[in-house]
Amino acid sequence: MINVTIWNEYVHEKIHDQVKAVYPDGLHTAIAAGLAGEGFAIRTATLDQPEHGLTDEVLNTTDVLIWWGHMAHDRVSDEITAKVVQRVQQGMGFIVLHSGHFSKPFKTLMGTSCDLKWRVAGEQEIVWCVNPSHPIAEGVESKIVLDQEEMYGEFFDIPTPDELVFVSNFQGGEVFRSGCTFRRGSGKIFYFRPGHETYPTYYQPDVLKVISNAVKWAYPARKTSNVFGKSEPVRPFKEILV
Amino acid sequence: MINVTIWNEYVHEKIHDQVKAVYPDGLHTAIAAGLAGEGFAIRTATLDQPEHGLTDEVLNTTDVLIWWGHMAHDRVSDEITAKVVQRVQQGMGFIVLHSGHFSKPFKTLMGTSCDLKWRVAGEQEIVWCVNPSHPIAEGVESKIVLDQEEMYGEFFDIPTPDELVFVSNFQGGEVFRSGCTFRRGSGKIFYFRPGHETYPTYYQPDVLKVISNAVKWAYPARKTSNVFGKSEPVRPFKEILV
Amino acid sequence: MINVTIWNEYVHEKIHDQVKAVYPDGLHTAIAAGLAGEGFAIRTATLDQPEHGLTDEVLNTTDVLIWWGHMAHDRVSDEITAKVVQRVQQGMGFIVLHSGHFSKPFKTLMGTSCDLKWRVAGEQEIVWCVNPSHPIAEGVESKIVLDQEEMYGEFFDIPTPDELVFVSNFQGGEVFRSGCTFRRGSGKIFYFRPGHETYPTYYQPDVLKVISNAVKWAYPARKTSNVFGKSEPVRPFKEILV
Amino acid sequence: MINVTIWNEYVHEKIHDQVKAVYPDGLHTAIAAGLAGEGFAIRTATLDQPEHGLTDEVLNTTDVLIWWGHMAHDRVSDEITAKVVQRVQQGMGFIVLHSGHFSKPFKTLMGTSCDLKWRVAGEQEIVWCVNPSHPIAEGVESKIVLDQEEMYGEFFDIPTPDELVFVSNFQGGEVFRSGCTFRRGSGKIFYFRPGHETYPTYYQPDVLKVISNAVKWAYPARKTSNVFGKSEPVRPFKEILV
Repeated sequence: MINVTIWNEYVHEKIHDQVKAVYPDGLHTAIAAGLAGEGFAIRTATLDQPEHGLTDEVLNTTDVLIWWGHMAHDRVSDEITAKVVQRVQQGMGFIVLHSGHFSKPFKTLMGTSCDLKWRVAGEQEIVWCVNPSHPIAEGVESKIVLDQEEMYGEFFDIPTPDELVFVSNFQGGEVFRSGCTFRRGSGKIFYFRPGHETYPTYYQPDVLKVISNAVKWAYPARKTSNVFGKSEPVRPFKEILV
Repeated sequence: MINVTIWNEYVHEKIHDQVKAVYPDGLHTAIAAGLAGEGFAIRTATLDQPEHGLTDEVLNTTDVLIWWGHMAHDRVSDEITAKVVQRVQQGMGFIVLHSGHFSKPFKTLMGTSCDLKWRVAGEQEIVWCVNPSHPIAEGVESKIVLDQEEMYGEFFDIPTPDELVFVSNFQGGEVFRSGCTFRRGSGKIFYFRPGHETYPTYYQPDVLKVISNAVKWAYPARKTSNVFGKSEPVRPFKEILV
Repeated sequence: MINVTIWNEYVHEKIHDQVKAVYPDGLHTAIAAGLAGEGFAIRTATLDQPEHGLTDEVLNTTDVLIWWGHMAHDRVSDEITAKVVQRVQQGMGFIVLHSGHFSKPFKTLMGTSCDLKWRVAGEQEIVWCVNPSHPIAEGVESKIVLDQEEMYGEFFDIPTPDELVFVSNFQGGEVFRSGCTFRRGSGKIFYFRPGHETYPTYYQPDVLKVISNAVKWAYPARKTSNVFGKSEPVRPFKEILV
Repeated sequence: MINVTIWNEYVHEKIHDQVKAVYPDGLHTAIAAGLAGEGFAIRTATLDQPEHGLTDEVLNTTDVLIWWGHMAHDRVSDEITAKVVQRVQQGMGFIVLHSGHFSKPFKTLMGTSCDLKWRVAGEQEIVWCVNPSHPIAEGVESKIVLDQEEMYGEFFDIPTPDELVFVSNFQGGEVFRSGCTFRRGSGKIFYFRPGHETYPTYYQPDVLKVISNAVKWAYPARKTSNVFGKSEPVRPFKEILV
């Protein structure tokens, strides 16, 4: 049983009618409903909860954390950011959606600005798979068509992804590396581009399938902990004292 | 003409006789002397200078920054760390030597703990080239033999390197990814393992050759600046207002 | 149920007493026994069988093919080589052990000489994990110690691996990229170094654990087949005939 | 002085009026003219010359080979293919243009089908840089707009590129990894997508700039030759005879 926590800043949905119309109970609730049949143990957490809903108890029992944020990135405390980053480095899977590219934990884990081009114009996005044997692409068609989405365009200022799984074509002419994996410490990270708050992207089955696959992929391997620090030689030799 | 700044915390050399004996004028001075014939414009900077010698004027005119630090990482101010990180992201080359793996700028750019195993026992290190067509390996033999070095052992907790150039074998049985490249923003980073303060590693010609090659490799390409933010379509389409 | 076929040239074991003493029924039989508890459906195949035991029927029902060959690489027919290569490209997993680096299918899939340094001197090999969150490393300690093995040394002339999982230290001073993944078409390939025919390497539990993990990792994703060739536009535009 | 040989099958231009109109003296001549100011020593070679113009003398004095082929791939002899592949593995740079993705040398070096989707409909291609600090992108704007080009679409069946430099957006909705680097042996390979024979792509300055940059990038490092085969220990140990 994989323990999944879906974190959403949950601000747009409460103050923008257009967003409320699409996600009346919040993006997190829609994603949770979309993943309901996958056999995960799913919790949600939001910005306005104590410790943003990410208490030590929640983080320590989360295998994979899904993150959606946009207009309130700076209201996420440095303390919780540090805890999320540390948990990822210790092995918690981390799936960062759409405007989460600018979230504090993602930027801290990347070491880059994570900046990009953008445009909200209701244009078509076609997400192509460039790595069809990757487990995150399993059972997903060669392309995902989103009739209306926000545009994100290159150059996307991230480190070279470990693996590139999806690339998007936008009607206005841009491209974007839409599905990227990274490893940081013992944790696996997947960035997935789609999901502007004014479009019903997270109701679309192939989008949910990608997120579900990513949860399974990011689920931490049960691994002996890494050992660091001063070490005795494995193969004894005559030491030269210094 | 490539403008190189060699930064050294310059603490060991002033307080430890054993280090002073090897590098009487500091590691930075030895490296500067070793690179003297390469045609670079070389400056040095140290921790105890105002702004650690890394004023805006120095950073803005540095093409490639070489960094050595060890016992005083925490005395590097957060302000200077942030400036170094930003300059790398904007295109300044960054060559991190040996114990610089734990420096604030490197850790910030990596997003990981950068931890490792270590042992100071005067053992032999053999640095093998695993990427012989890489420009950083140009003119370097297939292996570099260091008669005495500190051991650094895997798991080295870094992100997957963009390119792996050197791997070390230690007498005590460990291995280490000793030459790794990373890109962050517009900047190129090279981590190079050798160089414990008690051994004359930075007088060895093949070690200096690698550092010199790395300077040339990390020299920023003259590139149109990246443009981010709201963008008009390249290919006009009928906008669907949202 | 994963269908695994273990292919062995099975020549050394019949003509060299020293090898027969270690693997009286062949390396393939020892590996099959070692994987017996993993729940795979295991078959074996050898060079001297009709079509080297790799008939269309066998290949078409193999999910993952394990390959060990050494002194008889040139006796593998070009026809069977081509079939193995094609099946890998279509999605069959391919685990290449030790001297299989010089096998015809592996060299064809790599596009390089796959040459390396070697020495048979009964020396110690220590295989270190450099990617502890990779599924192939799951449940494996940070190092595997092999008391006696053949040495393989860098430069190993392979393409840059997609992922580097293990690196070996040899007593004589060399290093080797011992666990490497590659993707070719829809197929996943894992090269794993240990396993000289005169040493009991394939009886060692941690070596078998790596091979078992690799089988699971290489098991083909159930994916819609790739479509190639002439394509209609996804997004209609006014065609300019040429 | 970099010795560049531009190879073109040179068939379309002699039999198709539409192509002759664009490239009256052949694609190779247009590319040679476009690179004329770069200070390279440029030769051309074509399919119908003896040994396809790629004699041992030519290959042995070529630093970087540029390849364009399309309708006559199967008329390139296996012998010349093998020589080109071997020279690349020994360090010759290799720049493969457009439909050269299906050439024998490229397929042999890749180990995959190199298949893709395509459409000739005069549509717009926008080539975006996703790696702006890469030397192949130096001095090139963030995008290259080609008013009319053939479409190539993903999935492009190549191994994971070592580096991804450009990604294309096509008007009809597809994307393509248009600028990819690979290393094979000591040789550097760059695949660059644009250049259908009916469009004046190779007269466009930014396209020529990319090719010129790629020539400089692929120019072989002067490196000690790799040594393979039986090796004595670097670090003596008590041998255990087997």
